[in-house]
Parts: sequence; C-alpha cells; structure tokens
Amino acid sequence: MDVAELSPAQARERFRGGERVPTAGWCRGYAQANLIAVPKRLRYELLLFAHRNPQACPVLDVGEPGAWSTGLFSGDLRTDLPGYRLYRDGAAVADLGDVVAEWREDLVPFLIGCSFTFERALLAAGVPVRHLEAGTNVPMYVTSLPCEATGSLSGPLVVSMRPVPEALVPTAVEVSGRYPMVHGAPVHAGDPAAIGIRDLSKPDYGDPVEVRAGEVPLFWACGVTPQAAVLASGVEYAIGHLPGHMAITDARNDDFLVI
Amino acid sequence: MDVAELSPAQARERFRGGERVPTAGWCRGYAQANLIAVPKRLRYELLLFAHRNPQACPVLDVGEPGAWSTGLFSGDLRTDLPGYRLYRDGAAVADLGDVVAEWREDLVPFLIGCSFTFERALLAAGVPVRHLEAGTNVPMYVTSLPCEATGSLSGPLVVSMRPVPEALVPTAVEVSGRYPMVHGAPVHAGDPAAIGIRDLSKPDYGDPVEVRAGEVPLFWACGVTPQAAVLASGVEYAIGHLPGHMAITDARNDDFLVI
Repeated sequence: MDVAELSPAQARERFRGGERVPTAGWCRGYAQANLIAVPKRLRYELLLFAHRNPQACPVLDVGEPGAWSTGLFSGDLRTDLPGYRLYRDGAAVADLGDVVAEWREDLVPFLIGCSFTFERALLAAGVPVRHLEAGTNVPMYVTSLPCEATGSLSGPLVVSMRPVPEALVPTAVEVSGRYPMVHGAPVHAGDPAAIGIRDLSKPDYGDPVEVRAGEVPLFWACGVTPQAAVLASGVEYAIGHLPGHMAITDARNDDFLVI
Repeated sequence: MDVAELSPAQARERFRGGERVPTAGWCRGYAQANLIAVPKRLRYELLLFAHRNPQACPVLDVGEPGAWSTGLFSGDLRTDLPGYRLYRDGAAVADLGDVVAEWREDLVPFLIGCSFTFERALLAAGVPVRHLEAGTNVPMYVTSLPCEATGSLSGPLVVSMRPVPEALVPTAVEVSGRYPMVHGAPVHAGDPAAIGIRDLSKPDYGDPVEVRAGEVPLFWACGVTPQAAVLASGVEYAIGHLPGHMAITDARNDDFLVI
C-alpha cells in the first residue's frame, strides 16, 4: 500500500512497530508536525520563544505535563513517530525509535507546524518537490540568522530547502504563503551563503538533493529550530522528533490553509 | 492641540499628569494596546490562553517579571495609561490613575492588540465610527461565547461593538480583517442576543452608542477578554488597563497591517 494512502492511525502503527523513515509524502491530506518536549520549568520560555519566532515555530498544540497525546495527535507521542532525538545539557545524546523510558512526568510536549503540510499544495500547483521525487528526507540547514531570544532560549534559524525552477518561484511562494501556520512563504531565495549555508550538498539534517540548472533553492523556516535552540541554550533535557520523521496529526492540511 | 496629533510620548505625559480619558482617536497612526499583568506563576497559563484565543488575545509584547517597559512601549506601564483596574481573588477591587504602589516585582505585563488600531483604516475606507463621532468610549460586552480554556484560565469572550450602515458591512469586515494582530474581522454581525448580549444600551464596559435605522451592529473580539478570564478564574492578583483607556505604543498601526 502506498504510504500516501495510509491513515494517521495506520502510519502510527507502522512507526510503533519499528519503521524508521522520513514522513514526507505519508498520509496524504493530513498535517504533519514537529515535536519538542521540554521540562515544565521551561514551557513558558519555549512558548514565548515560539511566539517571538512564529514563522519557524508556529505552535499547533501544547500538551499537559507528562501527557503523550494532545487534541491534535490522538496517538502516543512516545512511540508513534518514526524517530526521536534525545537531548541532555545542550547535546544530542541519542537517536531512538521510541522514548517510552525517556518520557519524564514533567515533560511538556509542543507540536510545531511542518512544511510537509503544504507539499501537496505545491505539487497540485505544478511545483516539483525534489525530495519527494527522490524518496529521501528533505535537506535542512542551520543558518546564520539568529532567532529572537527569550531570557534563556536562543539559537539560529533552521531552514528546509526545496529547489524550484525559476519560473515557478512565484507560484511556490504564493502557494506556501497560504499556509502561515506551517511556516508559510520562504524566508530566502537563492544564494545559500547569504544566510550562512556553506555547502548545499551537506545539510545539517536530512539528505542532500540535486539543484538543477535553472532552479533556485528556496529556503523555508523549519520546525527543527526549537531543537537548535535546545542545543544552543544548553537545555538540560528535551526530546525532539528525528528531523524529517514527523508526528502525523489528526488535522487536515487544509485546516491550515488561509485565503 | 488635537489629541490625534499628539505623539505617544506626549500622550503618556498627559496621562501621567492625571488625565483619565478613553484613548480612541488619540495619537493618529500609533497602535494601541490592552494591558494585563499577572503574577509570574501564571504567565505560562496566560500566554497559552492567549495562544488558544488568538482573535481575542493577540499578544503584541510580553515584559520581564517586574518590568514596566517593553520593546513596544518605552513609557512607564505603571503611570502612562489613563486608567487601571486592579483585581484581587477574581474581583475588580479598584480603578486607579496609576499603579506604582501596586506593581509587584513578580508581575509579568502582556500587551494585547486593540481594535482602536484599525479605526483610522475604517474611517479612511468611509466607514463611520460612532464612538469617535460621539467622543465617548467604545461599548464593550461580555458575551455567552466561552474562550478555549487552559488548566487554570477560562472565561467568556468580550467584544467591542461598532454600528455600521448595512452597505458598508463588507467594507468594515474586509478592512479590519487586514489587521489580524489587533482582532481582525468581526466575530459576529447583527442580533446581539445570538451571542448573549441582552441590551446594547447597557454595555459591560465603556459607553453605549446609538444604533441607527439601517445599521448593523458589528462585534469584534476585544482585548478586555483576559480581564474577564481573571474575573472568571479567581486569579489572586492582576492589573489591567481600564477598558478603553489603552497603552499607546511606539508601534505604528501599519505594523499590524497584512496584505
């Protein structure tokens, strides 16, 4: 069965069973989300950081301390994503297939919008999505652009990249711009060096994709940004999704369509 | 000097000097804001409440605990508004001209968008604004519509009302809708009873205005909503602005214009 045809419940069952794959293209029509869970004492800081950096960190939902489901995600946040990254004292210490043992009682889960949510709309508008064609993870890069800090959280903006034929750049901007809660329009088009990216072939997260002649690399704010802030800010304990390995929510892509 | 011509600094000086008046029409071009300051232990709940009720509670800025200025408001939040309301244990206990003595060290001030910000745009589009014509405070009502609650904060939606000639209702909706960070488009048009308002001539806050034949009352989400939540939730201590007596910020109205 094509993974695009799976329901969120079916996809979660496969991830719970051990499948560890990027989720771009899975469960057509359902919105995907980034996960970042932090200790309760940091939940205000994280919510404020998200509020101050809304394009990178659009908050779709917040759970209660220790909860592993939310209104938007009826599965088990500890097992139903295809991959997790564990952070201690500002370092990534493990990539895991589940985080049942790591899910502390005081962890507060945040679900943050994901640009995979507007990829169907890009395709429908005739904009190719290279990593979907290649069956790989989207390439993501840590930029030199600082987020707006809070008292204890700061860090760089992380972006995802999709190469788009020049003639389709306006369409890609317009279509993604209709989804402001899942990062909206790109933050940059063109020269990667202008935002501190040295080598497109070496993404910080995910897989590289080919940028063909006549294509412009478009960069969208990315929901891995909170994980970069966890790293940069020395947060004592946090759990994120493995970049590109998202929470597939019960919400529809079109729930986040504006206009 | 026409109050519309004053700078925010000049207006603040007058309020600091004791002038207690509604601020609709003051400082043309400058955005106005609602104030709600709560104890630090409630700041997460309030930020989450605002996030869950974005049309009523668009957060423009948040200060540090005990701070009385923010990036958006370079004056003194304790003295530079024309009026304040003090809450204890879920009751309004005093209306004050300043809150220097009441501004506790652990109070966290939130500035919430205000619909006065789009009134110039309504006028420019030919939509009359009755309370500006009358030189009175805007009428505000507590509705029967519940806000989305958080663990400890809940309460009803508060709305402001402006009567608009039928033919201009679409214009009023469209123009205000371009300002989503200051409440955006109305939440209701027409029958007040449908949202639990019994008598338009008896607003819960502000002054009544005449609704003429051929006019439709339009209701906008209002930034007094957090004060209604403070009341309904029995919050132990909070300071709000006196409804209609706003913080005049350093930001421009057009900073909140979208499209």
